[in-house]
Amino acid sequence: MRIEEGSFVLIVGDGVRSVIRVSRGSKISTIRGVVNADEIIGLEYGSVVRTNLGYELTVLRPMITDILLERGERITQVIYPKDAAQIIVTAGIGPGSRVGEAGVGSGFMTALLAYYVRPNGKVYGYDKREDAIRIARKNLELLGLLEWVELRVGDVVNEGFMERDLDAVILDMGDPWNAIPNATEALRPDGTLVIYVPTVNQVLKVLGALRDNGYVDVKMVDVMIREWKTEPNEVRPQTWINAHTGYLILSRKCARSVKLTK
Amino acid sequence: MRIEEGSFVLIVGDGVRSVIRVSRGSKISTIRGVVNADEIIGLEYGSVVRTNLGYELTVLRPMITDILLERGERITQVIYPKDAAQIIVTAGIGPGSRVGEAGVGSGFMTALLAYYVRPNGKVYGYDKREDAIRIARKNLELLGLLEWVELRVGDVVNEGFMERDLDAVILDMGDPWNAIPNATEALRPDGTLVIYVPTVNQVLKVLGALRDNGYVDVKMVDVMIREWKTEPNEVRPQTWINAHTGYLILSRKCARSVKLTK
Amino acid sequence: MRIEEGSFVLIVGDGVRSVIRVSRGSKISTIRGVVNADEIIGLEYGSVVRTNLGYELTVLRPMITDILLERGERITQVIYPKDAAQIIVTAGIGPGSRVGEAGVGSGFMTALLAYYVRPNGKVYGYDKREDAIRIARKNLELLGLLEWVELRVGDVVNEGFMERDLDAVILDMGDPWNAIPNATEALRPDGTLVIYVPTVNQVLKVLGALRDNGYVDVKMVDVMIREWKTEPNEVRPQTWINAHTGYLILSRKCARSVKLTK
Amino acid sequence: MRIEEGSFVLIVGDGVRSVIRVSRGSKISTIRGVVNADEIIGLEYGSVVRTNLGYELTVLRPMITDILLERGERITQVIYPKDAAQIIVTAGIGPGSRVGEAGVGSGFMTALLAYYVRPNGKVYGYDKREDAIRIARKNLELLGLLEWVELRVGDVVNEGFMERDLDAVILDMGDPWNAIPNATEALRPDGTLVIYVPTVNQVLKVLGALRDNGYVDVKMVDVMIREWKTEPNEVRPQTWINAHTGYLILSRKCARSVKLTK
Repeated sequence: MRIEEGSFVLIVGDGVRSVIRVSRGSKISTIRGVVNADEIIGLEYGSVVRTNLGYELTVLRPMITDILLERGERITQVIYPKDAAQIIVTAGIGPGSRVGEAGVGSGFMTALLAYYVRPNGKVYGYDKREDAIRIARKNLELLGLLEWVELRVGDVVNEGFMERDLDAVILDMGDPWNAIPNATEALRPDGTLVIYVPTVNQVLKVLGALRDNGYVDVKMVDVMIREWKTEPNEVRPQTWINAHTGYLILSRKCARSVKLTK
Repeated sequence: MRIEEGSFVLIVGDGVRSVIRVSRGSKISTIRGVVNADEIIGLEYGSVVRTNLGYELTVLRPMITDILLERGERITQVIYPKDAAQIIVTAGIGPGSRVGEAGVGSGFMTALLAYYVRPNGKVYGYDKREDAIRIARKNLELLGLLEWVELRVGDVVNEGFMERDLDAVILDMGDPWNAIPNATEALRPDGTLVIYVPTVNQVLKVLGALRDNGYVDVKMVDVMIREWKTEPNEVRPQTWINAHTGYLILSRKCARSVKLTK
Repeated sequence: MRIEEGSFVLIVGDGVRSVIRVSRGSKISTIRGVVNADEIIGLEYGSVVRTNLGYELTVLRPMITDILLERGERITQVIYPKDAAQIIVTAGIGPGSRVGEAGVGSGFMTALLAYYVRPNGKVYGYDKREDAIRIARKNLELLGLLEWVELRVGDVVNEGFMERDLDAVILDMGDPWNAIPNATEALRPDGTLVIYVPTVNQVLKVLGALRDNGYVDVKMVDVMIREWKTEPNEVRPQTWINAHTGYLILSRKCARSVKLTK
Repeated sequence: MRIEEGSFVLIVGDGVRSVIRVSRGSKISTIRGVVNADEIIGLEYGSVVRTNLGYELTVLRPMITDILLERGERITQVIYPKDAAQIIVTAGIGPGSRVGEAGVGSGFMTALLAYYVRPNGKVYGYDKREDAIRIARKNLELLGLLEWVELRVGDVVNEGFMERDLDAVILDMGDPWNAIPNATEALRPDGTLVIYVPTVNQVLKVLGALRDNGYVDVKMVDVMIREWKTEPNEVRPQTWINAHTGYLILSRKCARSVKLTK
């Protein structure tokens, strides 16, 4: 596969790691020198190019997480890829899934969800803030994933979700306990509710609300990923890591949930 | 969606959590009493049933990780869901991906990969042991995922992969460094090589071999997941956790890799 | 230093690791065979002995944590050595310190405290349960540390501590927030209050009570220790670890604490 | 106890946390305003003072770890308090212990050891670099702990330790495996050898050398401490933590060690 004008590339090597959108005539600056974009266009992904300072860098197709983390516009803290990965796999979100999400924020989680529900699933993303929806739309377009997403300005606590029979609903908001009854309405009879909160104060409120709303199979985890230095002669964990993002709480709606919330 | 004869169900409640295949006329025994399978058939997923001892249990559609962990036949230690999740998302494996895997073992990782490459991708799974391939096939059939997998008895160190231009190759074997040249042949020019090893002795050999084979963007992580007790009045992490499964090493092939391995 | 009748020894080697009290005429059974206690008496610590099955084992002086964990009588869950170590060093408890403790439980923490406040400090240990005090006394005698401890049957919530001007007070009990006013009375004007609780529900109550009682420099940590397999050819973290014992909350009394609690 | 001219104080409150040496006539500047040192002298520790901006700060006696981390002069990375705590308690280092240490570096670990071996033990600290010994001496004087330490410029790999029959030897150096034979000479017959290394490359060399030198009861751990935010309404782990400092390897000399190293 060859690199085209307008594509994203991931350039790596000698301490360089960045995502660039290739545009004809432009120069790509790195800490190891400059590469002309024109030299890159038409090359196969995986090719090695030389900077004006003589360093060799490799040009790769980026993952969507690379693009999002380096190029995506943000308005809020995002659900980190490490947590998104656990949510997606543990909740069984995959090709064909229909997923609700609130709030959408900058659309990072939305993008990953869209990537995984393709080609026949759909993500329904809500946010109260118009600017969040606008930025999320931009980020999803950047990634070519907007086709699998419906974005809606809306308040799921007070107005609820327009969809029914969703496989999963993901709540990433300050007061998710208030959104549980409406999420219950939107879920399929045994759908999965995923709640992401950073503090233990919120955890206690969420767990109480899940019990009160009849949810079952409640699981909570926190995910720690330790990144390592990979220089073969000095292999060790990185000193500083992001050791806490949020708690992931997964649970299942059941017949009893519906009764309790009416 | 209604429960049919032959489906898997996940039964939960009051300390019960098990995956059962529903067959007409059988009895389902739990630590909270017995339920007749016939009472379950025809119900909607998410329904609540009562055991002969009067406990209420909920019947859910299980995730494939639930089915694998509780019902899958095993011959080997498996890549855990927590690690599989990171591999899949970090390597960008999704709908349409073409992925090589060696060894297949009991087929747990293979099954998750198959689930995520649907409907238009494919997993090519190798194992030297005929019994592994036989058990993996059985597990994949159990899950209805065999359609997206080619299983092959074969030695990737000595004979290599039959495929070319794969998006990713996953090596889960004792001496993955010996399989790197053949994995390089099978990968697309900027394909992702994922290596999973439990000891730091192996880590040092892998990192040296990746450097020698010209791989770039080498990343290594270990994933720790802390499970929590979710009883609202006594919220705390579980005391005992599985704190180490293996190290995940992801890297990218590039033009230089090919040269070095010829 | 030579092994005497009645001493504790730690016998290690080939998978054996146990603490034994040497008594003349007895036989020491291990999974690698039997050693006569008489052969050990008079040897230097560090000597190698041979079992009747031909295995070589080494006889070492045990640490007090070895003795406690293997020989101490227990009635309750104990503060683990990993947590005790952090408490002692972070609170600056050392030779000469005067420390209050409630509840004493089996006396494990008490013993470590006594070891570190020697030769001129003192530990004042309270427990409501007479049997706890009895077992703690037995454990402290076993270790020769009773000289540095005053044990008292007493309820620190309702009756308080008899001591004043303590350097530190350690609360390891179900409702430590109720004991804070009395701990404040017992502490020196800038003394350190250490609270150990397992659940986040308790954490929230403790943190609120510390604020209400005017405590400053409040720090909270949880300690995870990963043990490794140390066989040189297969170095890796142990699979299963005790990943949660309790939260350690350290804070300092100040002039404001006193005012608020009167 | 009252604050005297020349004492260290720890000033805390409203985001302020710093260690100051009180000298008459000076001004203490904080992010919450200025306090005159003269106002503090003569107060009891634990007193509350008011800055010129009206904020109330509390004046506490600092722990030695507070003084070291904030005021100690450094030339090298130090063994962190979390690791030092585990070493001290696991190795049973306490009042009366005689401990060897190489290299001393800035003397942080030396200071903690000195604090715990008081009043009748001793620490023998070696470093090849004269400037390290000079700075360590300064730091130990600052803390009033020099009385319990002998500092020596010396190369323990080539020249060894002058002491014999030590309870423990701590090696914190780049190539500790080369110092094991000389550490063995210096240890008591069942003494504890503690080795602290940051990389897994070093770990493999150390573990091989310990086996070759006949050491027994080899234990290796890494310690992770998660610090929490303690604001009662927003309790959560700190986002960024220092997740890796070094591996702690503890082992015991035995009769076989001596034979092998001669």
